[in-house]
Amino acid sequence: MENTRYDIAIIGSGPAGLSAAINAKVRNKNIIVFGIQELSNKIIKAPKINNYLGFYDITGIELRDRFKEHIENLGISITFERINEVYAMGDYFALDVNGKMYESKTIILATGIEYTKPLKGEEKFLGKGVGYCATCDAPLYKGKTVTIIGYNKEAEDDANYVSELAKTTYYVPMYKKELALNENIKILNDRVVEIQGTDKVDKVVFENNEIATDGVFVLKDSVSPTQLVPGLEMENNHIKVNLDMKTNIKGCFAAGDCTGKPYQYIKSAGQGQVAALNAVTYLDSMVKLS
Amino acid sequence: MENTRYDIAIIGSGPAGLSAAINAKVRNKNIIVFGIQELSNKIIKAPKINNYLGFYDITGIELRDRFKEHIENLGISITFERINEVYAMGDYFALDVNGKMYESKTIILATGIEYTKPLKGEEKFLGKGVGYCATCDAPLYKGKTVTIIGYNKEAEDDANYVSELAKTTYYVPMYKKELALNENIKILNDRVVEIQGTDKVDKVVFENNEIATDGVFVLKDSVSPTQLVPGLEMENNHIKVNLDMKTNIKGCFAAGDCTGKPYQYIKSAGQGQVAALNAVTYLDSMVKLS
Ligand SMILES: Cc1cc2nc3c(=O)[nH]c(=O)nc-3n(C[C@H](O)[C@H](O)[C@H](O)COP(=O)(O)OP(=O)(O)OC[C@H]3O[C@@H](n4cnc5c(N)ncnc54)[C@H](O)[C@@H]3O)c2cc1C
Ligand SMILES: Cc1cc2nc3c(=O)[nH]c(=O)nc-3n(C[C@H](O)[C@H](O)[C@H](O)COP(=O)(O)OP(=O)(O)OC[C@H]3O[C@@H](n4cnc5c(N)ncnc54)[C@H](O)[C@@H]3O)c2cc1C
Repeated sequence: MENTRYDIAIIGSGPAGLSAAINAKVRNKNIIVFGIQELSNKIIKAPKINNYLGFYDITGIELRDRFKEHIENLGISITFERINEVYAMGDYFALDVNGKMYESKTIILATGIEYTKPLKGEEKFLGKGVGYCATCDAPLYKGKTVTIIGYNKEAEDDANYVSELAKTTYYVPMYKKELALNENIKILNDRVVEIQGTDKVDKVVFENNEIATDGVFVLKDSVSPTQLVPGLEMENNHIKVNLDMKTNIKGCFAAGDCTGKPYQYIKSAGQGQVAALNAVTYLDSMVKLS
Repeated sequence: MENTRYDIAIIGSGPAGLSAAINAKVRNKNIIVFGIQELSNKIIKAPKINNYLGFYDITGIELRDRFKEHIENLGISITFERINEVYAMGDYFALDVNGKMYESKTIILATGIEYTKPLKGEEKFLGKGVGYCATCDAPLYKGKTVTIIGYNKEAEDDANYVSELAKTTYYVPMYKKELALNENIKILNDRVVEIQGTDKVDKVVFENNEIATDGVFVLKDSVSPTQLVPGLEMENNHIKVNLDMKTNIKGCFAAGDCTGKPYQYIKSAGQGQVAALNAVTYLDSMVKLS
């Protein structure tokens, strides 16, 4: 499928992204869905869900399995890749995954939101040694010392990649799971207190330790939408949409937690549907124009 | 439960109303839900549904059963009554069911929309012999001839009520089901061509027949929202809402098909959730003020 220009690229495999995917697929559109194997780290964490109409007293894992079954029945698969940046090219979008480019006529942002508070110093040193995309910026740290603060298992892949270039790579897991890291990575099981420096980051202070470092990557479930799509209009820290789930960029739609509160499954799924159906309408109008 | 002032009155038992109900109930609000035994005539008609995330290849009846199970598990029951009009009283709403009044601090309109096209002459003679609320206006037709054009089984109850006052009652079923009508009602199984008159209705013309009548009631699944709630702001024939599902009337929310396209289940359910959660926030702010 080299050089395919998709009809709809959906970024995110939570309820918003999956609902968009099934609705676009039912309308026979050529779609690609970016996300993770678990579909959504937020779904699988829910111990018990009572407010998704049709499912009473279901666990997050069970609901995830129902979603998985649904997309599989429609022949939808998830592309396990993380989009670093999206470029609006006029009549299409270019989606960057570590230099590899995907093209799509429309996009639906269904990236969720990051619940975790920024670490002390994280925002202060953003762009001054603190970054959110390890695979994009790794080349800057060739032969240097890099600290990766990972909030999920996907961050381990990035750490492994960085460790092939950096002289020293530290990994700070912010979760409790078995790690799959290259042998040359040093694991720090300690609580981060602050990222420090003067003009630029020079160290990370932990509860029981501190380490000198040239760079820090903070790898969370979602990055900020404006970092993902430059030029995107925001409102109260969320992507600004109208009732049709349109953003300020033509052909770019958004759905789910990333558009605002309440943060909930079925609201996200409903918005995903609306985004997909309006993307379909937009695609049909493009065809008529050309 | 006489004189109860509910926290949230939900008008409609389709996916929008039920999703609002479960979300309000989970938040411990004192709710009342108005609707019908079948929950929604539109759900049960769907032969096969593929676009409600979590349920693949399900029939409308099956989905209705899942919804029913969900609300029953949460102890929610439906009040089988039709709201004729809602009066905004300032800090609460009064809901009229044939003269019987319910009170609620907030309301959620989840009434769906009417898909059927108006009959020829229906809009022309609205208020001039054509009406949508048989039980409200029946007393006007004491000793006269009334024709009831019913789009669903609930219309039969209204016809029975009218037949106790009117001299002659005709019933025109617009659906195929066994009828349960008083013996004095004359059933006309014919296609309506036009409602006619000069200043006022005087006859109904059918494909194979015509009848003289003093009044015509057209009883569909939903009436127009502005008839239900005077003063409600509309936009393109739908209730105008913002992303929080707020209407122009304080404390009055709306969700589902009645707020606009696309007409779909999970979009309706998502909006029902948002409406309920914002009604809860509004109720909490009232408590703080008082
Ligand atoms: C413990 C817990 C319990 C909860 N309980 C409930 C509950 O009972 N009821 C309820 O309604 N809600 C509940 N929620 C909230 C619910 O999880 C969220 O509202 C919902 O998951 C939001 O869906 P979404 O699709 O918008 O985003 P998410 O589910 O967060 O999915 C976002 C997706 O986007 C992907 N992504 C992000 N950025 C990129 C990128 N750049 N490239 C590729 N993929 C990307 C992520 O990997 C993820 O797959 C709970 C949340 C938590 C954490
Ligand atoms: C044949 C058919 C197939 C469909 N297939 C699909 C599909 O595959 N996928 C999909 O997503 N959508 C489908 N739809 C559309 C879907 O049915 C609607 O979008 C959905 O039912 C809207 O939900 P709602 O809650 O807004 O309104 P509705 O389901 O219409 O419910 C409205 C409720 O309000 C009640 N009500 C109205 N006025 C009053 C009043 N004054 N007092 C008391 N109660 C009142 C009604 O009795 C009803 O219970 C289909 C529709 C039809 C007709």
